[in-house]
Amino acid sequence: MIKVGVIGYGYWGPNLVRNFMTNQDTRVVAVCDQDEGRLKKVQALYPGVTVTTLSEDLIADSEVDAVVIATPVASHYDFALEALKAGKHVFIEKPITTTSEQASRLIDEAGSRGLTLLVDHTFVYTGAVRKMREIIQQPSFGKLRYYDSVRVNLGLFQHDVNVLWDLAVHDLSVMVYALDAEPVAVSATGFSHVRGEPENMAFLTVFFASDIIAHINVNWLSPAKIRRTLIGGSKQMIIYDDLEASEKVKVYDKGISVTETPDDIHKLLISYRTGDLWSPKINDTEALQVEVDHFVACLKGEQKPLTGGEQGLKIVRILEAADMSMRNRGAPVDM
Amino acid sequence: MIKVGVIGYGYWGPNLVRNFMTNQDTRVVAVCDQDEGRLKKVQALYPGVTVTTLSEDLIADSEVDAVVIATPVASHYDFALEALKAGKHVFIEKPITTTSEQASRLIDEAGSRGLTLLVDHTFVYTGAVRKMREIIQQPSFGKLRYYDSVRVNLGLFQHDVNVLWDLAVHDLSVMVYALDAEPVAVSATGFSHVRGEPENMAFLTVFFASDIIAHINVNWLSPAKIRRTLIGGSKQMIIYDDLEASEKVKVYDKGISVTETPDDIHKLLISYRTGDLWSPKINDTEALQVEVDHFVACLKGEQKPLTGGEQGLKIVRILEAADMSMRNRGAPVDM
Amino acid sequence: MIKVGVIGYGYWGPNLVRNFMTNQDTRVVAVCDQDEGRLKKVQALYPGVTVTTLSEDLIADSEVDAVVIATPVASHYDFALEALKAGKHVFIEKPITTTSEQASRLIDEAGSRGLTLLVDHTFVYTGAVRKMREIIQQPSFGKLRYYDSVRVNLGLFQHDVNVLWDLAVHDLSVMVYALDAEPVAVSATGFSHVRGEPENMAFLTVFFASDIIAHINVNWLSPAKIRRTLIGGSKQMIIYDDLEASEKVKVYDKGISVTETPDDIHKLLISYRTGDLWSPKINDTEALQVEVDHFVACLKGEQKPLTGGEQGLKIVRILEAADMSMRNRGAPVDM
Amino acid sequence: MIKVGVIGYGYWGPNLVRNFMTNQDTRVVAVCDQDEGRLKKVQALYPGVTVTTLSEDLIADSEVDAVVIATPVASHYDFALEALKAGKHVFIEKPITTTSEQASRLIDEAGSRGLTLLVDHTFVYTGAVRKMREIIQQPSFGKLRYYDSVRVNLGLFQHDVNVLWDLAVHDLSVMVYALDAEPVAVSATGFSHVRGEPENMAFLTVFFASDIIAHINVNWLSPAKIRRTLIGGSKQMIIYDDLEASEKVKVYDKGISVTETPDDIHKLLISYRTGDLWSPKINDTEALQVEVDHFVACLKGEQKPLTGGEQGLKIVRILEAADMSMRNRGAPVDM
Repeated sequence: MIKVGVIGYGYWGPNLVRNFMTNQDTRVVAVCDQDEGRLKKVQALYPGVTVTTLSEDLIADSEVDAVVIATPVASHYDFALEALKAGKHVFIEKPITTTSEQASRLIDEAGSRGLTLLVDHTFVYTGAVRKMREIIQQPSFGKLRYYDSVRVNLGLFQHDVNVLWDLAVHDLSVMVYALDAEPVAVSATGFSHVRGEPENMAFLTVFFASDIIAHINVNWLSPAKIRRTLIGGSKQMIIYDDLEASEKVKVYDKGISVTETPDDIHKLLISYRTGDLWSPKINDTEALQVEVDHFVACLKGEQKPLTGGEQGLKIVRILEAADMSMRNRGAPVDM
Repeated sequence: MIKVGVIGYGYWGPNLVRNFMTNQDTRVVAVCDQDEGRLKKVQALYPGVTVTTLSEDLIADSEVDAVVIATPVASHYDFALEALKAGKHVFIEKPITTTSEQASRLIDEAGSRGLTLLVDHTFVYTGAVRKMREIIQQPSFGKLRYYDSVRVNLGLFQHDVNVLWDLAVHDLSVMVYALDAEPVAVSATGFSHVRGEPENMAFLTVFFASDIIAHINVNWLSPAKIRRTLIGGSKQMIIYDDLEASEKVKVYDKGISVTETPDDIHKLLISYRTGDLWSPKINDTEALQVEVDHFVACLKGEQKPLTGGEQGLKIVRILEAADMSMRNRGAPVDM
Repeated sequence: MIKVGVIGYGYWGPNLVRNFMTNQDTRVVAVCDQDEGRLKKVQALYPGVTVTTLSEDLIADSEVDAVVIATPVASHYDFALEALKAGKHVFIEKPITTTSEQASRLIDEAGSRGLTLLVDHTFVYTGAVRKMREIIQQPSFGKLRYYDSVRVNLGLFQHDVNVLWDLAVHDLSVMVYALDAEPVAVSATGFSHVRGEPENMAFLTVFFASDIIAHINVNWLSPAKIRRTLIGGSKQMIIYDDLEASEKVKVYDKGISVTETPDDIHKLLISYRTGDLWSPKINDTEALQVEVDHFVACLKGEQKPLTGGEQGLKIVRILEAADMSMRNRGAPVDM
Repeated sequence: MIKVGVIGYGYWGPNLVRNFMTNQDTRVVAVCDQDEGRLKKVQALYPGVTVTTLSEDLIADSEVDAVVIATPVASHYDFALEALKAGKHVFIEKPITTTSEQASRLIDEAGSRGLTLLVDHTFVYTGAVRKMREIIQQPSFGKLRYYDSVRVNLGLFQHDVNVLWDLAVHDLSVMVYALDAEPVAVSATGFSHVRGEPENMAFLTVFFASDIIAHINVNWLSPAKIRRTLIGGSKQMIIYDDLEASEKVKVYDKGISVTETPDDIHKLLISYRTGDLWSPKINDTEALQVEVDHFVACLKGEQKPLTGGEQGLKIVRILEAADMSMRNRGAPVDM
């Protein structure tokens, strides 16, 4: 039984506690939050759990094997480093840290101590994203061409991070997991409609070493919620709509074929192919439940983190570059 | 009765001929195309019309009052200049020319001769776009914040122009017509998946003098057709979906209110407003019919061109800047 | 504080317990179920609650003011009658009983003892249905013409009741609440695809005293879930789609006008009106929470039950008539 | 070359003329209509065609091989009989006649003369319906269980026929073509909201000899257009939505399995299967073009009519029975 301490019981904390409570290999033994009202709720629901407003007590608790960090991003680094130094495994909210330097430091600390460091990029553990990865990696999909995502809604304005760090981070985690391609440069533009606040709309292009291009459109000021990703392959294409109740992933047997006519090497023949559409059944197990199982398997040494420090760092590097580009109205930033 | 000669009877030409034939103030008297098979179709449908493969004959025809140019973009400038010099009014397909220099030259020629020069930016004449302009200009819409459009499909790869000049041109015409704002810089990224061919995917950000940002996503390699535009105002927001059969324009009574709390000027209070949705009835008269009426009114001096040379030039300038930015992976280009 | 005992902790029971627990005027003091595993779950979540497998103990418990009955329909009558005789108020799942005779008996018992009897027709307490009633009762809606609902999905086959008693009961509760019209006859058809089991598809027409007709299509064997109701008025019409995330109720400013031409009384002029569409903001408070508040208000004598025994009886009468008609392939049954 | 005379140039006539004109084996030589304005339009578009207001002249025309009848239903029988007697093949609008007696008479006349009689049940010739028939007939579909269709819109009130004869006729033609099952009884209900006019809403249940049930919901007074059919099989189910641009036919790998447990013959085990969804590419050739080809092949003796007099009669018999049932509020009518 892995004993877990959770720091932060705000928006996402209750989901984390519930999943670590119901997993057969884990149990939450302590919860820390600065808001006493929230701690009372924890006690009402889970009478046996120790509650505290002092994170240092939770981290020092010898009963705790793993620390879950669900606090604002700015505090991630300090809590995670402290926990690793105390010999605890770490399960940390996304994005891992506010700088790539911090992320590297955490990776080193976890590595040298043989501890597991997992970043909660929840989307990677959904049935839809796992199914898409499977499809993309089959030869029937052809060569990957592009990833193009719109992720917008009337969202809470955050004061500490811009919309890229809040929403684009999800697409970046999917891309890093499913695309298997190295980003070489980014260009980003964005805008803040509230003076003094971080950007609430942003458009990010990622260039890759191979013939792939990715684009992400995020917005906290959209009248309707849209979650739609197009993934183009040379033989098949995918539309992933996370708001669809039953057909989240659609695979189109569509594409273009390019052939060079033999007598004239400069003359291209582009022909179109349109065929059937197929929507695979998606495993609808709660993503967080899959992720907690994975965390346990990592602690037991049976699996390697799918969204470990390295993946978390890769994503923070893209976000850092995007911020730099966005401050210069899209000027490209090499990676 | 205004007598019209049409150069080019390809994809769009038949629609132009039909509309100039059925308008009570215009009549097509001559059609020119290099493909004799197409000319035969013209003769079968409209026995009285003169057909020719020689554009110079049509332009020189003294019976012709106005020349309609529906040929590939590269030939627009020469045909239009020739027609204006011959004293004919000109109705020309979009985009007006391949360079802003050429567009300026046509504007001067038409201006000095007192001739009408109208660019066929058809979307401006749709009921949906006219209704949106009306809504945006009302105080109830608040201050315009952004324009964000996705216009993708499995489209014909064009060999002479990239996807911006083919598809983004529609959004630019809507923006120039409906937004009433001056672009100051652009950043564009894009990609060609077929070696040696123009870009088939592109992402364009337009920055304006005021607090507005625009973004356009165009793609010839999408598995499904999407035509969706979000227009954000401070009090209302619009979703315009051109593929919706009956509810093309939806107006959301949604927005955010930003107030500074009196005791602490740095503390912003951002509150959300969500109310009803309203979808106005849209006039579904064929856009081209409205546009031909407008062309006639311009010739009679009753109206001024909504999509004249000036508007056409403004759009070409944005496209030129976008091309330059796209070649530099998003590096911003001032206008 | 109203003290509540809940009989039945199956599918719906946990929602009932949660809502009676969180309401400020009510508290669950006892839960009865025959499955000990379920009772353990109750104890884990709500340590202070008395659990029992004996309904008679719960009903006899002098601490209990009101009994909530969430058991299979066949047992409703016995539990409810026992509870009323013990002087408890009753909150009972839909449909109230399996026969109209039983329902009448419960109404009498509650009436003579001055106790509240509320049937849990949850849809009546949703924001969407309350908003629709409001719209239908305004003069702008015109004269009500029809109610036409499709409520299908791949549903659990029930062994004790057919699909009308399981699904159509929801539409009947909406109709009784929102339509304010007296049914005079029904015709129903249906089919069972599993020998020996109740009908899994059914189609019910209800005729009213006024010029209204209603139709309900229910099916446990549909590949996709559909919840869509058309409500026609002479001036406006409604489409209510319960699966729509944000636009559940759409009001169409559409209709037909019928005028008799003065010179020929037999000649009708039917003209069409199509105007804007409007989708009002819907209150999204959980329906059960609204209903528990209403139950409390009824107990305090401040309100009269919207879905009391009388309404429950009216619905059972329609279902009884529908069963009779369905056994005779649609032969009409007067009410 | 088959020479065709067309009687009736109203709503559907122009489509018929165009398709008989462009088919390589047929040519329209004469058009009859009582409205001279319409005849002028014919002459403008097709200068070589003879026009007349006298149907007897067209039918007597020795040049005419086949007569196309696109007039109001009430006149179908007389025109068709006259044409057959004159030795002409007949292509007639749906429904074939207003009574089954008339239909039988036409079948006899055509049969005894060896002439082709084709009813224009256009839906049978769409790619979607032909694809569905293919799917239903494969063993993977399992045993057919039901057909359930909604076909509603704000439609033109017709004064001569009710909504069943106008709209349900389409579903009946699809059913007769694709279902391969014998109707044994019907129950129908309906309503007219305009005094003295035929029913504008109707609900029709068809019972079959085998374990199939069909239901059709038609309405001229719906605020939105809906064209959706569910077809249930024991192994797969179909949703056919004719308004979907690109995914008209969806095949669900869903169903229920019913097994009897060995130890207790009365205990049924019903288990659910949910799998992938598949949307086949649909041939989008214009249905009328396919149908005219088929008509030609029938005249040449190469094919037998898919929608001949027999099929037309079968449909009229169902409609007659439905009318009788509808007048008696759903009382079943055996066939």
